[in-house]
Amino acid sequence: MAQKGDLLSVREDIRVVDATIRDGGLCNNFEFPDEFVKALYNANVKAGVDYMEFGYKASKELFNEKDFGKWKFCNDDDIREIVGENNTDLKIAVMADVGRTDFKNDILPKNESPIDLVRIATYINTIPAAVEMIEDCAKKGYETTINIMAVSKARTEDIITALDILGKSPVNAFYIVDSYGALYPEESRKLAELYCSYGEKYGKAVGIHAHNNQQLAFANTIEAMTQGVSYLDATVDGMGRGAGNCALELLLGFLKNPKYKVDPILKMLEYTQQFRESGVKWGYDVPYMLTGQYNTHPRPAISFVKDDRKDYTNFAHELFDIINS
Amino acid sequence: MAQKGDLLSVREDIRVVDATIRDGGLCNNFEFPDEFVKALYNANVKAGVDYMEFGYKASKELFNEKDFGKWKFCNDDDIREIVGENNTDLKIAVMADVGRTDFKNDILPKNESPIDLVRIATYINTIPAAVEMIEDCAKKGYETTINIMAVSKARTEDIITALDILGKSPVNAFYIVDSYGALYPEESRKLAELYCSYGEKYGKAVGIHAHNNQQLAFANTIEAMTQGVSYLDATVDGMGRGAGNCALELLLGFLKNPKYKVDPILKMLEYTQQFRESGVKWGYDVPYMLTGQYNTHPRPAISFVKDDRKDYTNFAHELFDIINS
Repeated sequence: MAQKGDLLSVREDIRVVDATIRDGGLCNNFEFPDEFVKALYNANVKAGVDYMEFGYKASKELFNEKDFGKWKFCNDDDIREIVGENNTDLKIAVMADVGRTDFKNDILPKNESPIDLVRIATYINTIPAAVEMIEDCAKKGYETTINIMAVSKARTEDIITALDILGKSPVNAFYIVDSYGALYPEESRKLAELYCSYGEKYGKAVGIHAHNNQQLAFANTIEAMTQGVSYLDATVDGMGRGAGNCALELLLGFLKNPKYKVDPILKMLEYTQQFRESGVKWGYDVPYMLTGQYNTHPRPAISFVKDDRKDYTNFAHELFDIINS
Repeated sequence: MAQKGDLLSVREDIRVVDATIRDGGLCNNFEFPDEFVKALYNANVKAGVDYMEFGYKASKELFNEKDFGKWKFCNDDDIREIVGENNTDLKIAVMADVGRTDFKNDILPKNESPIDLVRIATYINTIPAAVEMIEDCAKKGYETTINIMAVSKARTEDIITALDILGKSPVNAFYIVDSYGALYPEESRKLAELYCSYGEKYGKAVGIHAHNNQQLAFANTIEAMTQGVSYLDATVDGMGRGAGNCALELLLGFLKNPKYKVDPILKMLEYTQQFRESGVKWGYDVPYMLTGQYNTHPRPAISFVKDDRKDYTNFAHELFDIINS
């Protein structure tokens, strides 16, 4: 596929999605000070960010509200507390996990809610359940995206089957999700080309959500973009599970559309710096590199980092054993 | 140009160059414990690394030996202290800066020296002086590379002129050097394609030395590789000036040749971790991102980091003023 766009001009189809509270919430149990969430909302508005994801719509049957910060549940009233009537160009997103969201009850009709976009997160083997959620949310009036996680583990023929099913649903965008931070740029381009060809076939946009295990989150994001991917996930300071995500400040510094401004986001880095100092952990580190190289879930690396271990060689051997056991 | 190689097979032309002591020396004034340098030498041998760069051959007329660690000067005897007769497959490299090396006196005939490769570092406007050094070193029996620094600031027509001049010299490889960490992967691929076309014309290999200002050092390295670049610079833990370099552990984890082993390098990360704890600073950080985005020398960012400042927004404004003054 010919390259879409270049380094000097603007692609009007680009949508920047700030996922700081949602993916970053996985690092601090969704316990963000309201002051931070409000400041981030204001910064995103000023920075020209297109969507701000507030967190998960997690089922209160499955998760106890007392055990998490409020952005695990994203009650509409809690969002309103931050955004009021949201009379801005910034749209509000939440994530709904297949099998972990009581979507029929917890996702109200759009005209009663401050939410604009519901991002439905699925693995490749639960596509029919995802379609049910897409249809429910679309009928209620929401934009939807379908975020197929752990794509580096999925077989190409299964991805194709999934995109053909999803193409017939009312979903607005297909998302490439590199949950394990395992993709190299040449793989991201190939996946992007595949997703975009099905996107064209069915009239859907394509997005990417990258992880930074191999310091490739930004590279994979902008390389997928060259193939036509237009929904670009990023987080302030790359804050997100494990090695974190594509940094919003890198992405905004790269995009040429003058509507995007990096300055308001730089200010937010002074907050995330404080989170780090208070002990919240995320970002590139050797154990995440290893789980990325092994194309596996970062869980063992998260424990290693939590325990303040530095014996990387031992960890590599432990990981080898876990994977081959 | 068609992609060279793929993600599953081996490219026999690849040469991994460990530049930890040389580029890392810019972070600690070349003051490495001998124990570290010996351990790194042994690790590189075990890891299958092809070249280890020990430091600079800096002129003792221009620089006072008392002001720096010994790897600023790389006396042959100091290298021998580490490598003995170097009866291994690992070759020894040093860097010689145009205008800062007393090469006629300090670089002995190859048969009297443990050094195998002299890497000549130049800016685009001192090519004739570089050619003089290449010819001198080649006549003495060394392999040579020509490392054209700050390539992101050079005009394409000047690069072409330089490559045509250098092609006629006895240099073994042309190097793309992204001193400012300003290149994006699509630019690295384009530059790689250009350098490789001149490399083919003149029978020279092509190398890349990347900086991590925008978290793109590894991505730019492996993307340049897809276009035929074969000399790949990396450093343990990415240790190098400012934002540092492509991490050797990322690169070795990516390469498929079974001769390369990441394990011995993981062990070295336990040392570099100690350097960090003792206050040596390098690696991706917001001010380096900004100098990278602005395509400018990291000097102001290095000061900012040294001063432990965190007021990124002020720095962005200062940088804007510096660049536009």
